[in-house]
Amino acid sequence: MGQTLTEKILDDHLVEGDLQPGEEIGIEIDQTLSQDTTGTMVWLQFEALEMDEVQTELAAQYCDHQTYQFDFKNTDDHRFLRSAAGTYGAYFSRPGNGICHNVHKENFAAPGKTLLGSDSHTPTPGGLGQLAIGAGGIDIAVAMGGGAYYVEMPEVVNVRLEGELPEWATAKDVILELLRRLSVKGGVGKVLEYTGPGVESLSVPERTTITNMGTELGATSSIFPTDDRTEDWLARFDREDEFVDLQADADAEYADEIVVDLSDLEPLIAEPSMPDNVVPVREVAGQEVEQVMVGSCTNGAYEDVLPAAKMLEGREVSKHTEMIVAPGSKQASEMLAREGWTAEMMAAGVNFSEATCGACIGIGHVPASDSVSLRTFNRNFEGRSGIEDDSVYLCSPEVATASAIAGEIVDPRDLSDDLGDLEAPGFEMGTSYSGGYGAGDTDIITPEESIDDDLIKGPNISSVPVKDPLGADVRGETLLKMQDNITTDHIIPATSDILKFRSNIERLSEFTLSRIDDTFAERAKAADSGVLVAGENYGQGSSREHAAMCPMFLGVESVLAQSFARIHKANLFNFGILPLNIDEETYARIEQGDDVEVVDDVAAAVADGQEEFTVRVNDDWEATATLDASERERRTLAAGGKLSLTKQRHSEGSGAAPADD
Amino acid sequence: MGQTLTEKILDDHLVEGDLQPGEEIGIEIDQTLSQDTTGTMVWLQFEALEMDEVQTELAAQYCDHQTYQFDFKNTDDHRFLRSAAGTYGAYFSRPGNGICHNVHKENFAAPGKTLLGSDSHTPTPGGLGQLAIGAGGIDIAVAMGGGAYYVEMPEVVNVRLEGELPEWATAKDVILELLRRLSVKGGVGKVLEYTGPGVESLSVPERTTITNMGTELGATSSIFPTDDRTEDWLARFDREDEFVDLQADADAEYADEIVVDLSDLEPLIAEPSMPDNVVPVREVAGQEVEQVMVGSCTNGAYEDVLPAAKMLEGREVSKHTEMIVAPGSKQASEMLAREGWTAEMMAAGVNFSEATCGACIGIGHVPASDSVSLRTFNRNFEGRSGIEDDSVYLCSPEVATASAIAGEIVDPRDLSDDLGDLEAPGFEMGTSYSGGYGAGDTDIITPEESIDDDLIKGPNISSVPVKDPLGADVRGETLLKMQDNITTDHIIPATSDILKFRSNIERLSEFTLSRIDDTFAERAKAADSGVLVAGENYGQGSSREHAAMCPMFLGVESVLAQSFARIHKANLFNFGILPLNIDEETYARIEQGDDVEVVDDVAAAVADGQEEFTVRVNDDWEATATLDASERERRTLAAGGKLSLTKQRHSEGSGAAPADD
Repeated sequence: MGQTLTEKILDDHLVEGDLQPGEEIGIEIDQTLSQDTTGTMVWLQFEALEMDEVQTELAAQYCDHQTYQFDFKNTDDHRFLRSAAGTYGAYFSRPGNGICHNVHKENFAAPGKTLLGSDSHTPTPGGLGQLAIGAGGIDIAVAMGGGAYYVEMPEVVNVRLEGELPEWATAKDVILELLRRLSVKGGVGKVLEYTGPGVESLSVPERTTITNMGTELGATSSIFPTDDRTEDWLARFDREDEFVDLQADADAEYADEIVVDLSDLEPLIAEPSMPDNVVPVREVAGQEVEQVMVGSCTNGAYEDVLPAAKMLEGREVSKHTEMIVAPGSKQASEMLAREGWTAEMMAAGVNFSEATCGACIGIGHVPASDSVSLRTFNRNFEGRSGIEDDSVYLCSPEVATASAIAGEIVDPRDLSDDLGDLEAPGFEMGTSYSGGYGAGDTDIITPEESIDDDLIKGPNISSVPVKDPLGADVRGETLLKMQDNITTDHIIPATSDILKFRSNIERLSEFTLSRIDDTFAERAKAADSGVLVAGENYGQGSSREHAAMCPMFLGVESVLAQSFARIHKANLFNFGILPLNIDEETYARIEQGDDVEVVDDVAAAVADGQEEFTVRVNDDWEATATLDASERERRTLAAGGKLSLTKQRHSEGSGAAPADD
Repeated sequence: MGQTLTEKILDDHLVEGDLQPGEEIGIEIDQTLSQDTTGTMVWLQFEALEMDEVQTELAAQYCDHQTYQFDFKNTDDHRFLRSAAGTYGAYFSRPGNGICHNVHKENFAAPGKTLLGSDSHTPTPGGLGQLAIGAGGIDIAVAMGGGAYYVEMPEVVNVRLEGELPEWATAKDVILELLRRLSVKGGVGKVLEYTGPGVESLSVPERTTITNMGTELGATSSIFPTDDRTEDWLARFDREDEFVDLQADADAEYADEIVVDLSDLEPLIAEPSMPDNVVPVREVAGQEVEQVMVGSCTNGAYEDVLPAAKMLEGREVSKHTEMIVAPGSKQASEMLAREGWTAEMMAAGVNFSEATCGACIGIGHVPASDSVSLRTFNRNFEGRSGIEDDSVYLCSPEVATASAIAGEIVDPRDLSDDLGDLEAPGFEMGTSYSGGYGAGDTDIITPEESIDDDLIKGPNISSVPVKDPLGADVRGETLLKMQDNITTDHIIPATSDILKFRSNIERLSEFTLSRIDDTFAERAKAADSGVLVAGENYGQGSSREHAAMCPMFLGVESVLAQSFARIHKANLFNFGILPLNIDEETYARIEQGDDVEVVDDVAAAVADGQEEFTVRVNDDWEATATLDASERERRTLAAGGKLSLTKQRHSEGSGAAPADD
């Protein structure tokens, strides 16, 4: 039986498991990517591995979210990231150089390679045949340390494209159409693999708009085959030697097939406040628009902004509307400036911004109250723009620009009819790329050019602790007894006064469980070691790793709960905390302050696959607790967590290829 | 006796007083200017005047400080300002169009006219012969309402320029040299009038760099005569018809004379953390630089950025350094983009920002901790950059750019020697202005183009109250009895959690005197009217008007204190609160909660110039209190404050010319 393109790349990188949907597989990672809001923890975790340099073919660190540097902590983070990249042999992209996905695509993304990134839109370079997956910070750190990445083998779905886009319909409308049909949950556990005759009608920038926003479908990744257009695109960046011809086998079997006839598409728009609230633009036309933003990792390429610039030439942005253009990369900005389009847009009334994620995540250009904002971005979750009860619509640059000219939502076909002289800009590749990385790009510092050989930590940047391997004894005071349904927000709140300490585990850990008992952190530190007791569903909510990292930092060795939320339990393994299930009677009997001892030789028992453990309380009474863990989770736990495991393997010389895993 | 240029313009606009240094004069205002952080209160006060439209020849509202709009309140403020300008007949400059001083200079500033602005760098267009003065918000509102502006007649000092600037020395070095000689207090109570043969060697953008930063000398204003270069500059903006030939009389007498030989100047730099800490650049060379910023109202013109662009062409910003260029106006940005300089700067590693005040006031691009930032701005007060213990140096664009290339502070003459091929860029006027206002400028909305005929207030924007005229009775409970030396920070704190309510007097007033008694606001509101009692030096500290406005809003009718701080006392008059001096014995005897009544017919007594008042406490005992006030202050107080007075005059038909004052 033939293979899908996804299966081929996975097969090439497989280090553990079989390519059966739903089964866990381990894959080797060729490239990693991190950005500034997740990158500090990635590098602090990498520091904890005590390795001299990154083990992947390539690691790249970007500064794109906090580029306005509103607080010295942002600027300190950027300096730290530069120093970490330099110290450990990664590429560093300076603040102002653009969004990680755009800059990575332009400079490093390569067909057939695997990319793991600490950002949910990491799948973007699937548009040029790279298999790219978003993951948590510790996964990136471990991958940089040479460890495999573990993921459930996704189903591969065939998205068959037919026909060609008509005038005024764009790649954005392709992915909006898929969101309309499949919903934001439609891609969960899946890789969307694009095939069919429609593929060749789409350029690489168009393909990456589609793969980028596959994330909004919940997909593990999205990928296109490669062809002449891929090779042409790479050549524009002097990277044609990285081209590889990649296709699914003719007899590949897919879990499902979706057919999209491009020629049926028309300008679409996602209404507030979910990317799958998609309707034809004409259905919501006439709504007054106060803000229009063009840019982001979805539509921030030169080729995305060019249609907006052409439409604005000789015209004016409505006086009802503020229009901000923030290209996705400085390369896009520079090309637009060099060809005169920046000046034209400015003359038309555009506020031309530095290249940044910025507004997409609510950093800057927050909409006015009770107003409509039209954005070419990928998400419009309520409040994401920085104001509650926002009204953010998602659309193509063409729809956004037409609406900026009109001062209200308008289908560009109708505006064109009204104005008489507004022609469809079409889609055009750039003619004068300034040369990608390697040709005078001053904003990427290569490992060789690095000026740093040590980490530069501002006062808000600390180190992350690494736990020792699990010993024979697990024993300590019951530091806190909690109810059912404790969330990760209870464990580590995410309010802004606390969030800013995310690069500083020592400081952050002071807030651990403070919403339940604000003496907890102090007591835990004083006790040196201890356990937590909880009811049902402990750790529900977000996936934040800090909810395991901070208790670990404070000396928590085990959590005894009636049940655990799935992701948090995985995080407990990752940070070397023993998660034991107890029954209702035991829960009821243990009191806060009780001394708890796991009687068994814990290290040996965990390693040997033992499921039942004896817990002795106050040297007085005993109960049975159970450990439900896979073999890999047991190995992780025994080592003291994922970082410790990776570190241990590295010192044993297993290096980049995690062959024993 | 001949007149100085300053005296001539003042004479033309004099409505009260004589031009004797130190005496109060009232002058008619031709133009006003406000920006976004002061403008909301200006317009709320103007709204309170209940006039249909502004009475000055021209009023202009800019959005330049909070252009990153990182809170919806900023965006709401901008929308409110647009609506206010439209409703009342002012020009509105959109966020992104640039800094008020730059945009005003380009579009509206005119030789011989008076300009009053709610920003301390308002004197900028003195470089083209406008007499421009910075003032508080209520002064701007009153001027827009047709009232005169009152100021102590300044001394006029002759700054005689001789010679011509040598290579690498710039206009910035002229003003830095003056700061070196005179200190930041050297200009207090003075207008600096530039004369001499050196004037003609300086273009208008160079002159405005000098007049802009006269503010750092503490000067009331700075002014240049007009000449061919002024006319040429106006013509570039299609405004040559606004040219007026303006010179001091040959026999004008000045209070003092300072001679600066331009040919003696060399590149200078202000060390942290005061603009007068000026030394030659060579004295601090070698210091590593992490951030370089070019722009601001001081050095943000096209002609200021051009030398930086020329120096960067074909070169690279050091990897140790982040360089950010934020032009002062979109016109500068557009010209730089149109001529290809923006692309060159980007290629060299510059992060090219939207036109904004931004970083100059600590909004964005806050320096990293323990790092040096070189800026072409005008102020380096400690902490102003957004981080305590900052190290901000002030210099010319040439010095900043040379240092960005070197990664350390360097005199550009030395860098030129080192590199061999770095030529002095010299000073060059632009060749292709896109046409100033009136020639396709979409970012200024004229009163005629306005889309607003009513105010749009977001949830954080309220109205300001206007007090009724003083009545016969002043009576109320002693709401608070305070110690000596109460500051305006006690009265209205300026911490960020409170600052954000500055457009919302109702909300802000809840914090009135909360640092002394957090029940105060509630009690005052419940009591409906009342008085405050304080010891010596009540109201010391900042000049903030809110410290009088909020107590007035809460119903405070009189403050009885042993003595008052000068500026706060003026503010009490401006907001209609009766400031009475009491002696030590009376202070000691009055208790919080006592009922206080001013026995006299207060309105009549204030109007008649009565100085001694009888205060009856608890209908039990009496004391004498005194009112120390000028005739103008008494008129203001009797009317219920400055706003009420202006409103009253308007309704009496005295209009724009405050002839009776």
